[in-house]
Formats: sequence, C-alpha cells, structure tokens
Amino acid sequence: MSILVVGSVAFDSIQTPSGSVDHCLGGAATHFALAASYFTDVRVIAVVGKDFTAEHESVFQRRGINIEGIEHADGLSFHWTGSYVKSLNEAQTLGTDLNVFQSFDPKIPESYKDSEYLFLANIDPVLQARVRSQMPKVKMVAGDTMNYWIADHAANLAKVLRELNVLLINDGEARMLAGENNLVLAANKVLTMGPKTLIVKHGEYGATAFFGEESFPEGVKAVHPFRAPALPLAEVVDPTGAGDSFAGGFYGYLASQPELTPTVFRTAMFYGGVMGSFAVERFGTERLQAVTREEIEARFKLFQEISHLDYTGA
Amino acid sequence: MSILVVGSVAFDSIQTPSGSVDHCLGGAATHFALAASYFTDVRVIAVVGKDFTAEHESVFQRRGINIEGIEHADGLSFHWTGSYVKSLNEAQTLGTDLNVFQSFDPKIPESYKDSEYLFLANIDPVLQARVRSQMPKVKMVAGDTMNYWIADHAANLAKVLRELNVLLINDGEARMLAGENNLVLAANKVLTMGPKTLIVKHGEYGATAFFGEESFPEGVKAVHPFRAPALPLAEVVDPTGAGDSFAGGFYGYLASQPELTPTVFRTAMFYGGVMGSFAVERFGTERLQAVTREEIEARFKLFQEISHLDYTGA
Repeated sequence: MSILVVGSVAFDSIQTPSGSVDHCLGGAATHFALAASYFTDVRVIAVVGKDFTAEHESVFQRRGINIEGIEHADGLSFHWTGSYVKSLNEAQTLGTDLNVFQSFDPKIPESYKDSEYLFLANIDPVLQARVRSQMPKVKMVAGDTMNYWIADHAANLAKVLRELNVLLINDGEARMLAGENNLVLAANKVLTMGPKTLIVKHGEYGATAFFGEESFPEGVKAVHPFRAPALPLAEVVDPTGAGDSFAGGFYGYLASQPELTPTVFRTAMFYGGVMGSFAVERFGTERLQAVTREEIEARFKLFQEISHLDYTGA
Repeated sequence: MSILVVGSVAFDSIQTPSGSVDHCLGGAATHFALAASYFTDVRVIAVVGKDFTAEHESVFQRRGINIEGIEHADGLSFHWTGSYVKSLNEAQTLGTDLNVFQSFDPKIPESYKDSEYLFLANIDPVLQARVRSQMPKVKMVAGDTMNYWIADHAANLAKVLRELNVLLINDGEARMLAGENNLVLAANKVLTMGPKTLIVKHGEYGATAFFGEESFPEGVKAVHPFRAPALPLAEVVDPTGAGDSFAGGFYGYLASQPELTPTVFRTAMFYGGVMGSFAVERFGTERLQAVTREEIEARFKLFQEISHLDYTGA
C-alpha cells in the first residue's frame, strides 16, 4: 500500500572525518522516500527551488517514487550545512537556510488522496497537522520530530502527537519530550501523549519499541518492549539521514504487509536498521539510490545473526 | 568447572536517586562471585579487614562460594564512596579508601590450584599478573580493567592483556585503550593487544562481543560480532556492580559448559545481561544474594523475547 511522506527535500553540505560534500541531495523526505521505495509505493509532498533540476528529479523517478507533490517555487531549496568532525554521533549545525521552505504550504495532489500510510517527517508541527487534516482516511500515521519543536513549539507538537500511531525519535528527544531521564518512564509518559507506539532510536546501539494498549489492532497486545540491533560499522562515512532511512525501511516494510502484527512490527524494525546501516556507508543518498534487494535481504539476515541465539532452553 | 576470581571484596557507601546505603558489602569480586555462583563453583581471592564479619562471610557461604582465599588483615576493608545522583550511567567517586587493599599480596590456597577458569577482576594489573602466573594451567583467563589502569599503568596492563582469552570493558574504556573512537576499529585494535575476544559493555544498551581468529578452539571461527540486549528497566536502584555481575553471569555460564562454541559464548552473554539486570534492582548485592534459578530462566527467556524475531524469511 502507498505511503505519503511530507517533509524536506533539500541540499546538504556536510563535513565528516571521511571528507566533505557540497550541496548534495538530502532532506528527511528524500532519505525516507528512497529507503521506503524498496518495500512499497511512495509519494512525496515537499517544496524545492530552482536549484532542484531534472537530474535530482531522476533520483526519485529511478526508484519509482511519485514526485507530483513536489512543488517548485521561486528561490533556492532548503539548504543545511553541518559537520560531524567533532563527533559522528551528533551533527553540529553550521547553517540552516530555509529558503523556499519558509513559506511552504503543503498541497496534496488528488492522485495522492488514496494513500493509506502517512509519514510526517521532521518539519514544523503546524505543517504536519495541516497535512494530517487533509488525509482523514489514512490507515496509519507515523512521524518524527526534533528538540527544536519539542522545546519551542510544544503546543503545536502536542496536537500532532495525538494523531500518531507511531512516533520515531531518538533517546535525547524522548527524554526531553517526557521531562524524564529514565528511558522506560520517559517512553511510558510519551505513550500518554498520543502515540500508540514509540520507537526510540539509539544510533549505533539500535532502537527500542515501546508498545501501548492500542499498538495493535483487534486486542492484540505486546507485553514487552522490543530491541532491534544496529550493525557495528568500521566506517560511518556520513550519518546524515540515518534516522530517516531507518524510518523509511521500517514504515516501507509495514506498509507492504497485509496486517499489523507484533511480528510484522518487529521485522519492520530490523528492516529500519538495515536501511539505516546502508545510508551511512556513503555521503548523502548515494548508497540508498543504488542498494539491491539482494543486499537488503543479506543484511537483514546479518542483523539476525548478530543478535539471535540459536539456543532454546536451559 | 571451578572459577577462581581475584578482586576486591569491599564496602560501598552509595547514593542514588532511589536512596542511599552506608558500608554495604560490595567489591568487584563479590558481585562477580555471587552472579557466577548460580552457574558453577566459585573461589575467591581477596583481602578484607576487621570490619568483615561472620555475617559477611555467610553471604558467600549461603551461595556455596569458597572463601578460603579471602585473607583477613589488620585494619579496615577497602571502602568506596560514590554517587549516581547526577547520572545513573556514570558513578561519581567521592572517596576511595584502599585500607588493607594497599598492601594486598594475593596468595592462592592449594585447594584452589585446580581451578580451570580464572577471572581477573578490576584491580592493579600487577596483582592480576601475579595471580595469573601462579595459575599456569588454567583453561581460560578473562578479565576486566578500568580507565585508571589504562591511562597510568599502560605497561603493566599490556602484560595482562596478552594473557587474556576474554577482556570485558565498557565503551569508553575500549575507545581509550585503543586510542580510537570508532568502536569496531577500537575493538580490532584491542584484539591485537592480546585478548582473543573482546566484550564491550554498553550499559543500558547491552553488550557487543568482537571475536578474533582464536576466539574459539579447533579452528571454529565467528565471522560477525554478536550483540546481546539489556533489559529496559523502569527503575535502576543502584548500578554499582552491574558490569561485574554481567561478567559473573557470562563467565559462570561459560565455565558450566563442556566446550566453548559460538552458541555457548552467545548464550553466556545473554546470561551476563540477565545477572546485570538483577544486580541493579536493589542496593549492593541484595538481589544477587536471593535471586532464584526460576527467576534467572524466566528473565533469560524475556531477553530472547525482547530481541528475537519470530520471522525467518522475506
């Protein structure tokens, strides 16, 4: 089934210990869409400027991603400049040029209206809410946010949280949103704010899903949290978009399945980790543009091998 | 088979957000021995002072731990004062009174000499080496260390590292020891320093084992690292000794098995996580003194449930 994603399609200028790139195609919606495209149909809502050319369009088109909803505006695309030279675990933002994103008013093409899965990537919660309200019939809504919206746009964010089936954020964001340092208590508190399920991303340590009473349909309950591993990597070329790629792999797999069961959800988390691990192997979206289905399946098996016991009883 | 552990038997005064305790029984060898005692015979080498009474002896004896090698010296036992009020992830040391530990010269009773597994808990590497040299016939040697020995006693530590089958340290210690920030590269470098296998403990995120060419006997090779989860806990009463309890569960299980296979090693890591998760539920060693075999097995299954996919193919 189709996923509609709203978020940034942007250009990134990035420095990492492995090198640097200038104005490479990026943005949360881009990473998400490319990662999800290996599992299901994806449709993008975003705004770009004159610097977004046919060459950039073809990156989406080659992966079969529908970009009818990418609006072309006068001016330049959103441009982010960041460095991971000090730490690969945390981006140091050197510049944020919103450009055409500043006056972004998401419009949903008629052809997108039958999308059953909605993903609200990390943008202003006002825009997230505006898209959500235009898609009243979706089967599932997932979303991301960040410290900036948590700290300074709490009321707007609170409205979006109430609409979410799944919220995907990192450890620091979960603790900040809940105002609670213990991760389990923080997760329990976030689950009272609206999201039926919370996925907390731990970077190089994987991710944990915390389930609420309504995580699954028809009275199915997940008693325990679920922990998915990350792959220990000898080189992280560029961490940009790892979280969005995790979300794309996770949600793409979910949308490709006929029903939402605990096993489907857990498997989706593994695919999220798989797509995140590919994303960081090259600068920008290079790796996500060209990974093969065989590579994805081989890495999925590797994720199982590095974390599963072939042992059944004491 | 029997484990001989050398390390501190001490008293801890601890503050955490859950409360505080004064002079409770602790020390790396204590936590290790209690955790390992659920799996195999354990013998302890340590030194204590006059404040170590029959009541403290009975804590070991009730778990069947051999304390013939605990030397009683004049003076007071090693006493550590620490606080986790600022962060449960890192102890703030408020005081270290070495007391009788200052002139500790480990002596190994004859009855310990047939021990097949040796564990060198976190003490001066000079003492670790002295014990190692008195046990030339052991089948396996594992050990721990900390930032202080890595930074200021590098040459002495280097000698101990060359003797180890398994080194268990945390993320920060692995990075410090290797002088390398990427965990995989750090692990690869540590594996060139002597240890055949490296276990890196990630605290609330679990642990990762990195295997070398000689991790397993008879040409068995482990191609990939292995990641064991930690249990998300809503309350960590006292993190003191979590790493030693992990080591005890891990090594205790290993020593209880007839041969060292990749599956045995991986299972041992899960038992390590299990014992670590019990240790932090109460102050000091309270929980480790009284956990039941049934509780251990139930939690082992829980560790599998929170991390394993019941999914086999795409």
